[in-house]
Amino acid sequence: MERAGGGVADETEGEPMTAESGPGPTTTDVGLDATTTDSASQPPGPLVDALRAALDGRWGDVREELRDDPAIGELVYPEEQLTMEEYRERTLAQLPVIARTGAARQGFTVAQGGTGEAGASVTAFETLGCVDLSLLVKAGVQFGLFGGAIANLGTHAHHAAYLPRVLDLSLLGCFAMSELGHGSDVQSLRTTLTHDPETDEIVVDTPDPSARKEYIGNAARDGRTAAVFGRLLVRGENHGVHCVLVPIRDADGAPMPGVTIGDCGPKEGLPGVDNGRLSFDHVRVPRADLLDRYGRIDDDGTYHSPIANPDRRFFTMLGTLVRGRVSVGAGAGAAARTGLALAVTYADRRRQFSAPGTAEEVTLLDYRAHQRRLLPALARSCALAFAQNALVEALDAVQSVESEDEAAQRALEVRAAAIKVAQTAHASRTLQTCREACGGAGYLLENRIARIKADLDVFTTFEGDNTVLLQLVAKGLLTHMRDAFHELDTVGTILFGARQFAGAVVERTTGAGVVQRLISGSGGRLAPTALTDRGGQLDLFEDRERHLVETVAARLRRVPSTDDDPRAAFAAFNAAQDHLLEAALAHADRIVLEAFVAAIDGCDDPAAADLLGTVCDLFALSTIEEHRAWYLEHGRLTTRQSKDVVAGVNALCATVRPHARTLVDAFGIPAVVLDVPMLRDA
Amino acid sequence: MERAGGGVADETEGEPMTAESGPGPTTTDVGLDATTTDSASQPPGPLVDALRAALDGRWGDVREELRDDPAIGELVYPEEQLTMEEYRERTLAQLPVIARTGAARQGFTVAQGGTGEAGASVTAFETLGCVDLSLLVKAGVQFGLFGGAIANLGTHAHHAAYLPRVLDLSLLGCFAMSELGHGSDVQSLRTTLTHDPETDEIVVDTPDPSARKEYIGNAARDGRTAAVFGRLLVRGENHGVHCVLVPIRDADGAPMPGVTIGDCGPKEGLPGVDNGRLSFDHVRVPRADLLDRYGRIDDDGTYHSPIANPDRRFFTMLGTLVRGRVSVGAGAGAAARTGLALAVTYADRRRQFSAPGTAEEVTLLDYRAHQRRLLPALARSCALAFAQNALVEALDAVQSVESEDEAAQRALEVRAAAIKVAQTAHASRTLQTCREACGGAGYLLENRIARIKADLDVFTTFEGDNTVLLQLVAKGLLTHMRDAFHELDTVGTILFGARQFAGAVVERTTGAGVVQRLISGSGGRLAPTALTDRGGQLDLFEDRERHLVETVAARLRRVPSTDDDPRAAFAAFNAAQDHLLEAALAHADRIVLEAFVAAIDGCDDPAAADLLGTVCDLFALSTIEEHRAWYLEHGRLTTRQSKDVVAGVNALCATVRPHARTLVDAFGIPAVVLDVPMLRDA
Repeated sequence: MERAGGGVADETEGEPMTAESGPGPTTTDVGLDATTTDSASQPPGPLVDALRAALDGRWGDVREELRDDPAIGELVYPEEQLTMEEYRERTLAQLPVIARTGAARQGFTVAQGGTGEAGASVTAFETLGCVDLSLLVKAGVQFGLFGGAIANLGTHAHHAAYLPRVLDLSLLGCFAMSELGHGSDVQSLRTTLTHDPETDEIVVDTPDPSARKEYIGNAARDGRTAAVFGRLLVRGENHGVHCVLVPIRDADGAPMPGVTIGDCGPKEGLPGVDNGRLSFDHVRVPRADLLDRYGRIDDDGTYHSPIANPDRRFFTMLGTLVRGRVSVGAGAGAAARTGLALAVTYADRRRQFSAPGTAEEVTLLDYRAHQRRLLPALARSCALAFAQNALVEALDAVQSVESEDEAAQRALEVRAAAIKVAQTAHASRTLQTCREACGGAGYLLENRIARIKADLDVFTTFEGDNTVLLQLVAKGLLTHMRDAFHELDTVGTILFGARQFAGAVVERTTGAGVVQRLISGSGGRLAPTALTDRGGQLDLFEDRERHLVETVAARLRRVPSTDDDPRAAFAAFNAAQDHLLEAALAHADRIVLEAFVAAIDGCDDPAAADLLGTVCDLFALSTIEEHRAWYLEHGRLTTRQSKDVVAGVNALCATVRPHARTLVDAFGIPAVVLDVPMLRDA
Repeated sequence: MERAGGGVADETEGEPMTAESGPGPTTTDVGLDATTTDSASQPPGPLVDALRAALDGRWGDVREELRDDPAIGELVYPEEQLTMEEYRERTLAQLPVIARTGAARQGFTVAQGGTGEAGASVTAFETLGCVDLSLLVKAGVQFGLFGGAIANLGTHAHHAAYLPRVLDLSLLGCFAMSELGHGSDVQSLRTTLTHDPETDEIVVDTPDPSARKEYIGNAARDGRTAAVFGRLLVRGENHGVHCVLVPIRDADGAPMPGVTIGDCGPKEGLPGVDNGRLSFDHVRVPRADLLDRYGRIDDDGTYHSPIANPDRRFFTMLGTLVRGRVSVGAGAGAAARTGLALAVTYADRRRQFSAPGTAEEVTLLDYRAHQRRLLPALARSCALAFAQNALVEALDAVQSVESEDEAAQRALEVRAAAIKVAQTAHASRTLQTCREACGGAGYLLENRIARIKADLDVFTTFEGDNTVLLQLVAKGLLTHMRDAFHELDTVGTILFGARQFAGAVVERTTGAGVVQRLISGSGGRLAPTALTDRGGQLDLFEDRERHLVETVAARLRRVPSTDDDPRAAFAAFNAAQDHLLEAALAHADRIVLEAFVAAIDGCDDPAAADLLGTVCDLFALSTIEEHRAWYLEHGRLTTRQSKDVVAGVNALCATVRPHARTLVDAFGIPAVVLDVPMLRDA
C-alpha cells in the first residue's frame, strides 16, 4: 500500500508538459482507450462484492438486510405526481415500515427501552437514504430529534412515559428549536419557559414574532407534542436554553389552547415533511415535563444543574444531539451515491456524436469533459463513505458507554460537524452535476435525480448551517478539540483559543498507525514522488491543514481584546473569517483522506484494494488540484508539479472510467431505486 | 477610466501579506467598517437611476414600460401551490398578456407581419424573466421557436398563412427538434420526411423509439401544429435536416391520426410548460408545408437548395435560430439578478450572532464569508448584463438588414453561444448560492429563490447544452470566427481549423476603441500595477485566452488525420477536450470584461461610473482569482501577486458591501416580485 494505487500518469499530449523537462512521474499515454488496472480482468461479480463489503463497513449486515427488504419497493419515490397533502399522507403512512425495521429502536439504550446499537441505527437510516429523503427526514424528526431530545435531555421518568409511544408512533412529535429570528444562533432563542411557583407549572411563551418556532418538521400536520427549546426563567433568573415537552394538538388534531400553528407550505423539496410554525401564548405545562437531565427545578422551586456555567451547559446539551448531525451527513452521502449511480450508468450507455470518420457514436463517459464532471465526484463519494463509516464507529463507541467522556464527546462533535459539511456540500454539488450530465432527462422527475437534488438541497443549511459548523470545527482546531471549552460563544472561544494556541495538533481520527507509517516511510511532500506516493499525498493534505491553522491562529492572536474594543475585535476576526473557514475545510479533507487510507489498509481483497487505491489517488489529486493555487502560493508545489496534478487527474479519470460501473454497482443501491425511464430507454 | 475604480487594497491582517515585503498596491485597512466610495455620499435615488440607465442599455424604455405595466402583478409567481395541470392552465392563460405587450410582434420583420425590432423584442422578454420563467419559456416556444422556425425557415406563403395566427395565439405550436436519442447532435436526427411524388405529400415518420421527439414544449397539452425537424428524403436521396409543419391535434385537442403524444410529466421546474413527446406513424402533410427557404421541392419532384453542401445548409438553418439562444441567456441573466436582489436585500437586513462584547447582532452581509458568496456574483451579474446588452445590439444589427452577411452571422452565433454558456452557468451557480445564503427561508417556495432556481436549472442544458456550445465557441476561435466553415461537423472543423491555425486573432466584440486605448496606455499585464489598472486587467484576460487558444491549436495540429486512424484521432482530440473548453470559457470572460469596460466608458454619470468601476474591479479580480492557479503555472503572476488578488477580492467585497443594495435596486426588479415573506419579516 505504500505506492498509490493507480499512479499519476503524465500526458504526452498535455499542453504544458511537452515544453518542459525534468524528473516526473512515469509517462503513460492515455486517451479514449483507457488503461485498465489488473482488477479489470476479474469477473465483475466478486469485485463488486468485495468493494461493497469495504464500502459497507462494520454494519454491512444491517445494510444488506434492508436492501433485500421487499418494503424498499413501496418506500421508493412515487412515480405519480402527488400534491403536497398526498405526499405528506404517504410519508406518514410509511413511518410504521421504518419502525418495523428496528432501526429506530436500535437508536436508544437498553435503559431507554431500545437495544443500544447507535452505529447500527445510523447505518440503517443511511441505507434508507436512497429511497425517499422525505421519509428519511420525517423518521429523523420523530425518532432522532424528538425521541433523541427526550432520551438525551430527559431523565428516567420521561423515558418511561414517552419513548415507548415515540417508538410505536402513538405519539408523534416535533423538535421545536429554530426560531424565525434565530436559526443558527440558537443560544439566543427568545421563547421563554417561565416557572410559575404558584401552580408549579412551566409557562411557555412566544414574546414576539421573531421568536416564532420556524421550519419545524412534523408541526404543520402530524405532530401532537413538541420538544420546545427556550430560555428557562426560575425565580426571575435566566438559566439559559432548556427544553420542555408541550402538547400542541389534541387527540382530534386541533391546536391546543394558546398554541398557534402555521404551515411553511410548499418547499423546494421534501414534500412529504410537514414543516410548520409554532407560537405559544402563555401555554402551561406541568413542571414534570421539563426535560431535566441538565437542569431541574426542585419541589421548592429552586433551580439545580450538574453544570454550573450556563454556556457550558448549553453546549453540553447541544452536544448530546450530535447523532442528528451524523445522520444528516449519512443521508447526504447516500443521496450523492444514488445520483452518481444514476448518472454514471446513464453516461456509460448513452451515446452522442460519432467520432469523425467513424459511424459509431461515443458513450458520454468516454468524453474527457464528462469524466471530469463525474469521476472525481465518484472518488470523493467513496472517500466520504469511508469517513462516514469511521465517524459512525466513533459515535457508536462514545454512545455505547454509560460514563461520559467529555473530551471524546467534544472531539466527536467537531468531527461530526466537519463530515456533515463535507458530505452535504459534496452531495449538493454532485447532484447538480449529475442533473446536468443527464441533460433534459435529468430534469424530468421520473428519472429521480432532480427529485433527490431538490430534497437534498436543504441539508447544507439545516441541522447546522455549513458556514456556522465550519466555525465550530475551527474552534475545535484552535482549542485542540479535546479541551472542553464551553464558557464562551464560538467567536469568543476562537479568539481565546488563538491566544492560547501553541501550534497545530494534528489529531488522527482514523488509521493513525497506517497513516503515520505511510508518511514516515515516504519522502513526504518534498520528495519528487510526493504526488504519486500515498505518504506524500497524506503529507500534502496535512501540511495544508497545519499551515492554515497556524497562520490563522497567528492572525487572530493580534486581534484586539473584545473587552477593549469589541467592534475592532469583531472586524479583525471577520477579516480572517475566510481564512478560518478554509482551515476547517482543509481539516475535513485531511480526515477524509486518512479514513480512505485506513479503509484500503483494512481491505482483504487484493483486486478491490487495488482499485480503491486508484480511486483514492483520484480523490487525493483532484482535491490537491482544486487547491493547487494555494500550494503554489505557499511554495508547496512547483509549477511543474502543479501541471502534473492536472495531467494526473485526467489520466486517473481515464483509468477509473472502465471501472465506473463497477464502483457505482458496489454502492449497493437497490435495483428498484435505479429503475427509471432514462435507464430503460438508454 | 484609466485607473480601475476601486483599486486593489492590501490587507494588513492578510495571512501571507505581512510576512512578505516588496512593492504592492496601496494599503487600505478594511473590515467591518468598510470603506466607501465617493458616490456613497450621494442620495441613493439619483445614483440608482443612473446605474439603472447604464444597466438597462439601449432599450431601457422597453424595460421601463414593462416594469410599470400593472400586468406584472398578475404574471408573477403564484403564492398558492398549483398542481401541474393548474399551472399549465395559468401559464396558457397568461400568453395573451404577452401578446398584448408587442414584444412578440417586434420579433418579426415588417415583411413577416411584425415591426422588425429584434433588439426590443429580446429586451422585453428579458425584462419578463423576473416574473415567472414558465411563462417566459412558454412564450419563447410559441413566438420564438415555433414562430421563429416559420419566419426563418419558411417563405412568404408560410409567413402569410401562419404568422398572424402565431401572433394572435389562434395557432399554438411546437418546435419539434430534439429526439430521445439525439438531443445535442441534431444533425443526426432520425425522423424521416419523405416526399411521396404520387400524392405530392411529405410523409413524416418516426422509424424507431430513439427518434421520438422529446422534451417538446407546448406538445403535451396545448400545441396544435408542430414544426418537425427530420431528414428530407426526395427520390431516395437524403438532403439532410429540414423542417415541416405537421398538425398534431384537431380542433378539439385530440391527437391527429398517426400522431402519438406523450407527456414528459412533472419536472424539476417550469411546471407551467407542457413538455411532451411526439411520434409519427407515416403522417402525411402537403408538400407546401415544407419550410422551404433553404430547400424546396419543385412541382416535378426535384429538390433544390440555394446551399449545395448539406452540412453547410444545416448549420445555416440552425444559425437563423440564434435568437432563441440569445433569449435564453437573457432570461438567465434576469433570473440571476432577481435571485441576487432577494438574497442581498435579505442579507442586508437579517442579523445573526452578536459580536463578542456587544449586544447588537451583525447583519449577514457584514460577514466576510457572506460577502464572498454574494458580492463577486453580483459583480459578475453586472458584467453579464452589459455583455448581454452588447450581444442584443449585435443581434439587432444583423437581423435588421435584409441582405445576409454570412460572416457577421457566424460571429454572432459564436458570441451568442459564449454568452449563453456564461449567463446560464452563472445563473445556476448564483441561484444556488442565493438559496443557501438565505438558509431555511431560501428553501420555502414562498420566498421565490428556490422556485426560480428550479425553473432556471434546465437553462444550462437546453437550447444547446453548455458543453456542446463551448465546443462551438472553440470552433469559432480556431477558425477565426468569420470564416464561414460549415462543411464539417464540429470536431472535424476544430481539427481542420487547428491545422490551418496561424495564431489567435482576438476579435473585440465591444468597445474596441476604449479597450485598445486602455491596454496600450497601461504597462499591460507585466507592469507592477497590472492588477489595479484596467488596461492590465484586460491584458491579463486577453493573454489567457490567447495562450489557451494557441496551445490547444498546437496540440490539435499533432492529432493524426481522421482518414488515417479515426479512433486515434478522436482519442487525441478527446485528450485535449478539457483544454479546448477552457479556451472557450476564457474567451467568454474576455468579451464580458470588454463589454463592462465599454459600458463604463459610455456612462455619463460620474458617480455611477465610479461605482461601476469598483464593481468591474471586483469582477475582474474575482475572475482572475478563480484562475490564479493557471496564471501562476504559466508565469503570468508571481506568488506575491496571486496573494494580492485574493486580498484584493476581500477588500473590494468590503468596498462594494455598502453599495450592494443600491446595485440590486438598480436592477429594476419590480417591487411586486420582491414582495416575499422573508423580506416582510426581516
